[in-house]
Order: sequence, then C-alpha cells, then structure tokens
Amino acid sequence: MVTSPGTFDPLRPSSEGATLHGDHAYVFYQVPNDARRLPLVFWHGAGQSSKTWETTPDGREGFQNLFLRRRFAVYLLDQPRRGDAGRSTVPLTIPATPDDQTWFGMFRMGVWPDYFPGVRFSREPEALNQFFRSMTPNTGPFDAEVSANAVSALFDRMGPGILVTHSQGGGPGWWVAMRNPKVRAVVSYEPGSGFVFPEGEVPPPMPSLTGPLEARGVPLSQFMPLTRVPIVMFFGDNIPEGPSPNPGQDNWRVRLAMARLWRDAVNRHGGDVTLVHLPELGVRGNTHFPFSDTNNVEIADLLSRFLADKNLD
Amino acid sequence: MVTSPGTFDPLRPSSEGATLHGDHAYVFYQVPNDARRLPLVFWHGAGQSSKTWETTPDGREGFQNLFLRRRFAVYLLDQPRRGDAGRSTVPLTIPATPDDQTWFGMFRMGVWPDYFPGVRFSREPEALNQFFRSMTPNTGPFDAEVSANAVSALFDRMGPGILVTHSQGGGPGWWVAMRNPKVRAVVSYEPGSGFVFPEGEVPPPMPSLTGPLEARGVPLSQFMPLTRVPIVMFFGDNIPEGPSPNPGQDNWRVRLAMARLWRDAVNRHGGDVTLVHLPELGVRGNTHFPFSDTNNVEIADLLSRFLADKNLD
Repeated sequence: MVTSPGTFDPLRPSSEGATLHGDHAYVFYQVPNDARRLPLVFWHGAGQSSKTWETTPDGREGFQNLFLRRRFAVYLLDQPRRGDAGRSTVPLTIPATPDDQTWFGMFRMGVWPDYFPGVRFSREPEALNQFFRSMTPNTGPFDAEVSANAVSALFDRMGPGILVTHSQGGGPGWWVAMRNPKVRAVVSYEPGSGFVFPEGEVPPPMPSLTGPLEARGVPLSQFMPLTRVPIVMFFGDNIPEGPSPNPGQDNWRVRLAMARLWRDAVNRHGGDVTLVHLPELGVRGNTHFPFSDTNNVEIADLLSRFLADKNLD
Repeated sequence: MVTSPGTFDPLRPSSEGATLHGDHAYVFYQVPNDARRLPLVFWHGAGQSSKTWETTPDGREGFQNLFLRRRFAVYLLDQPRRGDAGRSTVPLTIPATPDDQTWFGMFRMGVWPDYFPGVRFSREPEALNQFFRSMTPNTGPFDAEVSANAVSALFDRMGPGILVTHSQGGGPGWWVAMRNPKVRAVVSYEPGSGFVFPEGEVPPPMPSLTGPLEARGVPLSQFMPLTRVPIVMFFGDNIPEGPSPNPGQDNWRVRLAMARLWRDAVNRHGGDVTLVHLPELGVRGNTHFPFSDTNNVEIADLLSRFLADKNLD
C-alpha cells in the first residue's frame, strides 16, 4: 500500500492523503470432492495470465480441469501487475505495439509464417487467433521480488502445496521455494531465467541472440532449501544444442543449457532435480506451452507420474 | 486486429509487418449439471473485473457460486482492455494514482473514513483491504462500443441468455440488448450512464457534483428492441432525492433519477422495465455493490424471484 501526502477530503476527493492498495496476486481456486492432500498452484509466464492453464487455444481442457478431474485442488493465479491483479503501485505505459509474430517465434511454434514440422499446435486459424488473444500486458513494471512475495503469501494462507510454474514464473518460483517451506515440490515448464546458484558456483553468462543469460549467486544457506523438495523441469522440442540464427530457438538453447547446469548444482548439494527434455522421451513437437499443446493429456500424464513417483499425490 | 506497415522478418523480429490481436473480452464459464435453460452473463463495472461476481470482500460466495448452486450456467467476463482481456489495440498510461478513498465514497460505503450507519459492508479491516484490491485498471481507453461488440459476440457464440450488468457495464449493456436478440432479459445493478432514449424524448442533462449526466438519442427503430425483453434495475441505499454536498451520493442521485425516466420511456413504448429501489422494499444499507454486500443472498433471492416471475428460469 502506498499513501499520498496530505489529508483526504471526502467532499473534494483527490489523491491528497489517499492510499493505493496494489502489487497483490489474484487467485482463483477450485477444490474437488475428496481432494488429494496437496493442491497444485499454477503460475503463468510472461505476457500471460491464469488463462494459460484454463483452456487450450484449440478449445480443449487445460491443466485446470485435467487436474481437477484427477482430484487435485487447483489454484490459478495472476501475478502482481498482470490480469485481474492489475493494480500496481508503480505507473507504466502500455504501448500496444504489434508483436504477435515475435511471440510466435519466441514460443517456438515455428519461424513465421511457417509452423515447425510436426509441431503440436492446431493448424485451425481460430487456434492461433485464440492463442494471440490469451496474451495480456503488464500493468506495472515486472518485479520478480514483488511476484515472489505475493505467491509466498498465497502459500502462507493456503498451506502446503505444489508450485507449478511456466517460463517467466520459473525464476521467482525458485525464490518462493527457497523462502517458504510450504512449497513441497516445484514443477517448472521451460523456466526462462532467474536461476540461482550458490556463490562461487555461478556459471558465466551465456550469450545468445536475445542477449546474455545470467545466473545469480546466493549464500549457500539461502540455496539449500532447493535441495529439500522434489523438482522437475520440462522442456519441449525444437531447442537446438548449438547456436541458431533464429532468436526464438537460440533463446531457449541457452535456457535449456542453464537449466542443466542448475539441475547438476542442486543435485550436487543433495537435491532431487529431474530435467525432462521431452524429445529425449520420444515426445516430439512441443512448443513453449506443452500443457496446452495438442498432446497436453500426455504431458499431464507425465506430471501425474512424477507426482506419484515422489509420493506427492 | 491491427497491422504495422512493412514486412515481418522472423530472424530480426520487430513490430514491422507485425499484427496485434486485441479488444476482445475474456470469458470464464461454468455449466452445472441439469442447467436451467438460460445462462447468466455477468458484466462488471468501472475499475472492476470478473472478480466482482466471484467472492465477497468478506470472503463469502458471490453471485457466481450462488447462481451455479441455483442451477444456472454462469458466464463471467472481463470486458475488452480490462483484467485478463488486457490486450488493447490503443496505448494507455496507467498512472497508479492513489484513489482508494475516492472509490470508498463513489461506491457509497460511507463518507471517508466513516461508514454509513447500517451499511451492508463488513467492518473487518481485511474486508476493506480485499475490496480495494479487487480494483483493476483499464489497459486501454474505455470504449463502450468496443465493449458492446465483444459482449454481443459472446451472445452470438453462446446463444440466448440473460445479461447481468453493473454500473459502467450498464450503458454498453443496453447497446448489446438493442442489437442482439439473443439477449432475452437484462438485469442491471446501478447502471451509471449510457441511457438511450428515442430521438425527441431525450431528457436534458442532469447537473451533479460529478458533472452533468447526459442521455443519448437514437432512432426509435433502434430503441424498440429494449421494449421486447424484461428488464430490471436495482439501486441500493443512501441515494438522496435532492442535491448532496457529498459527490459519491450526488453522483447516484442523478443516475437513479435518469433510470426512472428511462424506465418510463421504455414502458411508454410497450416495454417491461422494473426499477427496484431497494430501500422502498425495506432492504436498507446496500452499497453500489448489492450482489457482494453482507446481505447478498437476500439480493440474489430478489433476482431469482424476478427470473421466476418472468419465466426466465
């Protein structure tokens, strides 16, 4: 909450002496009958909202309903300064700059206007229309710390649960797991940045066509909670091992590489991190949004298996 | 959809030749088993989102669940350029100006910092905190026509239904009812502006402390569809009949007066408009948000009774 100087006069209302409540998350939840022990908390990525998990661009059920049917309580959030959590304490201009095609590339649907061969995205034009319309802008500057605080507050209120993150949500998600022991596991789809390593073990920045990907060092004591919960990361297809002239692919090349180093660092300290590169399982064609791709039931099954293996269901 | 001039280059992505899909509504819906014939479509007011209808500031069920339990399919929308429908084709700056206390007055909770005596709002500080946090800004300029188009498109896709509006949603709601025969009834909580009259019958502007309230004239043929569906408007308490030095009360004085003139105009042409000023029924203390006030089950019962009376359930 921020407060303007002065005294508020209700008969001549202005910002003088007024407050603004903001920077909260917005959370919608559903609890099925006979719910399993631990709820799933779903956190979207950049340019996205709770919509990410609700339905697919081609109109099928998303993880919200799929996991409700599997008897999990599901919590869907809009992070601070996004969607229905739009009230920000910091101003921002939304430029309305056309950028659909940039996201088409960055989310690895293809090289505009072509889809990748075999990509798990419907070729119905309406699916692409719906996909573009699921984007929603920041309503204040993105702030990983503000976001982590809000999601940690959710776990404080809700109790123990499993954090499921996507892309931009991945980075602040690690921070929530480090600070709040109510996070009992983390599932992360293509975490994009914000990887934390113990000081002295931070890998050098990784250059890419979208800029250098930098990791961050934290004291070992802050890092260690990450070794105490099961963690799984999933990455989709069309991520090259070597440099690519296509920014959308080169961006994810360094992110997958950094995620591997991070997995090794956490496990070196006694952690339990699994990195699933889907093509290595023979699951091909997934975009940056595996949970809403055309094979999302198969992707949900992989998550269910992980939760069963770790006694989290 | 808007398109930038030029040609998009996927290897050097920019706004050149790119598109932006925007100005859609975002709709979340739930259909119960054995749903009644007509769904309810809930449309929020200014500074609000679908949250308006979900839960109450003091943590009870809102109209979403109350009417699901009463076997209605419920559709909750974020209008274009609001909440999860954030993608606007027109830029906007969000100033993050502190204004909580202005809304406290405008939404008739009291004269800051005092609540009206007997007002139907919890005195728990957490309720006020939650109320302020349910506000969410425009992400593009408010445009009644853009909003009406989006909600009309929803009815085209969904089929016949009942439109339930609040405040700022009321004005464009009349436009949807005028142009789309799939709107089978309109329920409006404190519609704030956008009243349409047949040309030649437009009342003069009504001056108030928040500016003059102006009605709009349309050809009679455009107006007549409003006479063909049942309409009910509900207004809460603490709306004075004469001028008030308090802007929050004076604002609603002219809106209630205009709504009465509008009811009379529609009915004069053969319509079926009911205006319920809740205190006249002995229901006292309601704010601008009767559907989430502490007596919201009683308010829901009044709506159920209306729907039954009009054979809409």
